Order: sequence, then structure tokens, then C-alpha cells
Amino acid sequence: MRKVRVFAPASIANMGCGFDIIGLALDEVGDIIEIVQSEGDGLTITNKTDVPLPDDIEKNVITPVVRTFLKRIGKKAQIDVTICEKIYPGSGIGSSAASSAAAAYGMNELYGCPLTEEEVVEVAMEGENLASGGYHADNAAPAVMGGIILIRGYEPLDVVKISVPGNFYCAVIHPRIVVTTKEAREILPKQVPLHTAITQWGNVGGLVAGLFTSDIELVGRSMKDVIAEPYRKQFIPGFDELREKVLAAGALAMNISGSGPSVFALCNHKDKADAAGKIMGEHFDALGIKNEVYVVKVSNKGAKLTRVSI
Amino acid sequence: MRKVRVFAPASIANMGCGFDIIGLALDEVGDIIEIVQSEGDGLTITNKTDVPLPDDIEKNVITPVVRTFLKRIGKKAQIDVTICEKIYPGSGIGSSAASSAAAAYGMNELYGCPLTEEEVVEVAMEGENLASGGYHADNAAPAVMGGIILIRGYEPLDVVKISVPGNFYCAVIHPRIVVTTKEAREILPKQVPLHTAITQWGNVGGLVAGLFTSDIELVGRSMKDVIAEPYRKQFIPGFDELREKVLAAGALAMNISGSGPSVFALCNHKDKADAAGKIMGEHFDALGIKNEVYVVKVSNKGAKLTRVSI
Repeated sequence: MRKVRVFAPASIANMGCGFDIIGLALDEVGDIIEIVQSEGDGLTITNKTDVPLPDDIEKNVITPVVRTFLKRIGKKAQIDVTICEKIYPGSGIGSSAASSAAAAYGMNELYGCPLTEEEVVEVAMEGENLASGGYHADNAAPAVMGGIILIRGYEPLDVVKISVPGNFYCAVIHPRIVVTTKEAREILPKQVPLHTAITQWGNVGGLVAGLFTSDIELVGRSMKDVIAEPYRKQFIPGFDELREKVLAAGALAMNISGSGPSVFALCNHKDKADAAGKIMGEHFDALGIKNEVYVVKVSNKGAKLTRVSI
Repeated sequence: MRKVRVFAPASIANMGCGFDIIGLALDEVGDIIEIVQSEGDGLTITNKTDVPLPDDIEKNVITPVVRTFLKRIGKKAQIDVTICEKIYPGSGIGSSAASSAAAAYGMNELYGCPLTEEEVVEVAMEGENLASGGYHADNAAPAVMGGIILIRGYEPLDVVKISVPGNFYCAVIHPRIVVTTKEAREILPKQVPLHTAITQWGNVGGLVAGLFTSDIELVGRSMKDVIAEPYRKQFIPGFDELREKVLAAGALAMNISGSGPSVFALCNHKDKADAAGKIMGEHFDALGIKNEVYVVKVSNKGAKLTRVSI
């Protein structure tokens, strides 16, 4: 019997302009799971958290991750997973990716790391596919690898890790509004004006350049999303006024986290992130919308073992 | 009377995926002009090259550049410009931008540099507007500033200079096919599928990351244009077969230069660029299409004075 305990972080997809291709890992906030491997051929998943998850393991993102991993390395085993800590699903900070990444990373560690980091991401994407019907890596890759991840392309998966320059903090708010990933995807047009697309990829170039040169002003200027945000912000009451207040308080940028409904403000000081978080909380409080605020550092660390026993 | 002699380099716009937002400067190939400033209020342009240019100065890109510069600094003068060397117009390596950049840079030098480098680019863009009916900086900015230039946005102009990592060479071929910038623009769809746009901005991110990390393989993988090239390559006989041969000879990428008809291959060794240039020449020779081939280094230098006298 072998056992690992794994942490995988929460993550923020898109980072403004990087729709579907950029994501960043957060510090401390995340999922913790334990995986026990023994002889046999089967899978159980036990949820020890207060977060409601489906009893049917076929609906849990961990299931396709574990099965794909074992198939890929050509092994059979009895795998018993315990979920110890869990980001609230639908929070928009990569809840499904954290579970998927923890499972993929943990399985790889249990078997002596037969897969590369990039292959671990591919396996984790099986969980994302179950959760949202698409093989996206913009949460899964930062949840596995940490840092700010650029997904250059998917065929084949080509990811670039960008180390976080200096101290970046995110104030993240999860307003308790229900927006499914499906809804958030369906509201987007299938076609976009060429000149709008050009604006977006100018910003993507600026964001990547700003990260590599530690030009935080350039990072802030570049984090404009002219593709998804104009449609998705309607799900978030008072989005524009909130951003105005948050930027006035010194945040570099404020955007929707992934497909929402969470919103995050990127800041280059903890004090500014605290101020942004306070403004965000007050905004949704005033609207009578329940919410949780996190102020967390952007992290260069991804999934990691917290305990191993053999 | 004051006089300057200015060189501004040829340039390659788009660099594959960076449609309208990336351009690079070439070494040695470019325009040379002389500008004489004296008392009075007027403009003459004399063409001392063999390249046919319109006699009407209102049709010469230098005219709006000189006038905009003087207006911007609030001065009047008699300006007499002599064109000493000229890239062939329509060659697709930034002929109009080289003239515009030389004029804008030279005027700024004549007056003791009242404008910033970015403002000089803005003035040069007046020439681009006359040439193609649009304020584009993807040739003008590298022609002024050198290096590989990212134009993050236009409102206001926000340019990022990326130093060229190592020794990059371009083999450029100008096949004598007439494709006007207007034709090359009109063939593009006004709307693009969202998933195609995502592919493009993933590549833009990869290209910028590859340049900053000197990861030349990543640069090559990222230089794919899924937006303009599928439409514009029909102007260039045998484009796909040519690329196959050029890549097999070791080039990192082969793309259309700007709106064409020139084609360039980016290489990380002069030998490979020579080989690519030879293949390109043979390709168009075999089709009976007259052509000129240049093999030149990508340059960190932009416009520069070659002589001053007061």
C-alpha cells in the first residue's frame, strides 16, 4: 500500500486578455486529497469536506483523471481517494482543476513520476473535460505547474511557464451568483470582429512582455479583455462601477476570473489587494449578494506533496 | 541652413501570428534621404534614385510626415528632401515605412529631438496612412526604433521594443507579383471564428515568450498565422510547397511579409538563411516570376543619422 497527500492550488483563468490561454496559480487556497494505492482494480472517492459533491463517482472529475493516468501507464490498481479540503465548486477559481491537478499529480508521484509535467497537465485536463465539456488547460496547467502559464496551443499541448515577477497579490471575490461555465460560454459570439481580435492579441503580447520585463504598468494596461468580458460582465451586478473603484484604490487591473462569477483584482502590494478586497466585499454586501473574499499571493508553486507514506 | 542624412531600415510586419501588431527591422537594407532645412515655408522632394516615384509631392509619404512634424512643434521652414536610396515600392518590406521613418527621424534630429521616440513613430504613421489609408505602426515602429516591436495598442500608441535574441537572419524574397495592400486587406474577412482568434493569440503569447527567453524553437512554433495567411497565400504561387522546402532546410518559420507579396524565412544561422534564400529564388525562377532575394540580419538598430552638417 502506498499513500500520498497532495495539495493543488486554486487558479485564475484568462487573466483578462488571455482568454483560454493564460492562467495563474494562487498561494495557499486549494484542494487537498489523499490517494491510497493497493492491489486490485477499482476506485473509491470519499468526501470528508462540508462541500457538497456528487455521490456518483462517474460525476467526480477525479474519476477520469485516475482512469486516464492508469491507462496511460498501462497499470491496474485499487485507488482510494479521500477529499480533505475542497474549493467550493462554481466559485470561478478553478475548483474542478484543483481536484483534477491534485489527482493527476498525486497519481504520478505514487508511480514514481513516469509522466512529464506537461503530460500530468494533459491527464488533469480529463477532469476539466468532465466538468465543462472541453479540454481546457488554463486552470489545470497552473494548478499543476504553478506560476503564470501560457498555453501556446493544444495540438499538441504546448505550455510555457512564466515566473511571477515580484510580489503579485490577487484580491478575489466569489459572489454567490450562479453562472455555469456552459451559460458563460454560450453567451459568447462564435465570430468576433477582426479588429477586436487584433486588440486582444496586442494585449496578450503586452501582458507576456510585461511579465518578462517586470513592467507592472504594462501588465496592468494589457489585462483588458475585449472579447468575453463585454458579454459576461452582465452576470455581475455593477461590474464597471466596481472596477472603477478598485482601480482608483491602486489595483493594476480587475477582471472576471475564468468564466465567472468570481472577480479578481491584480495588485503589486498586499495593502492594495487588501483595499481592493474590502471594496469588492462592500460592493456585493450593498447589493445583498453573499460573498467570500480572499486576498492571496500569486504563486510560483503548483501541485505538491504534503505527505508520503509507503 | 542645417542638413541631415538619414537611414531607415526595411522591416517585416506581422512576423506570422502578430498580424498588425508585430514588426521587425532588417539590417543594411533601407532608405537613405537627405533633409535640408532653411528659412522660409515650403517643401520640395527630389528623387535621385532609379526607383519610379510620383512627381506630385502630395502623393509622396514624406510630405504628410514633414508637415505633421512641423505642425506638431509649431514651426515653419523651407524643407528640401533628397531621396538617395529607396526600397522598391510594393516589395512588402516596408518601403513606405522606411521613407516615413527616415523623414520623421531626420526632422526630429534637425530640430534637436523635441519628440520622444514614440512620438516620432506617430509622425511616421502619417506616411503609412497616405500609403495605405490606415494608421499602422507595424512597419513604421521597427523602422524608427529597430529590433522587434510589439504594438500593444493604438489608443494611445503603446509600443514595446523586444531586443532580438542572438543572431536571427531573414531570407526575404520579393517575387514580382503585384498585390496592393488594399487588395490584400480586402480579401480578409471582417469577422473571424472565436476559436481561430484564440489560436492566434496563443501564438502571439508564445512568440513574445520565445523572444524573451531566447527559445528559438518556441519562436518558430509560434509564428503561425491562422488569420491572414490562409487568404493571402493564394496570391503567392506554390506557397505551401515552398514553405515545406524552406522548413526542411532548417528555417524556423516562413511567412508572408506584411500584406505580401514578399515572403520571408526566419533562421537562426546565416547559412540556413542562405539556403532558404536559394530555395525561394529557385521556386519563383521555376515559375518564371522575376524576383529579388535578400539575406539580412534582423537588426536592433532603427533609423539613424549617417551625416550631419550645420
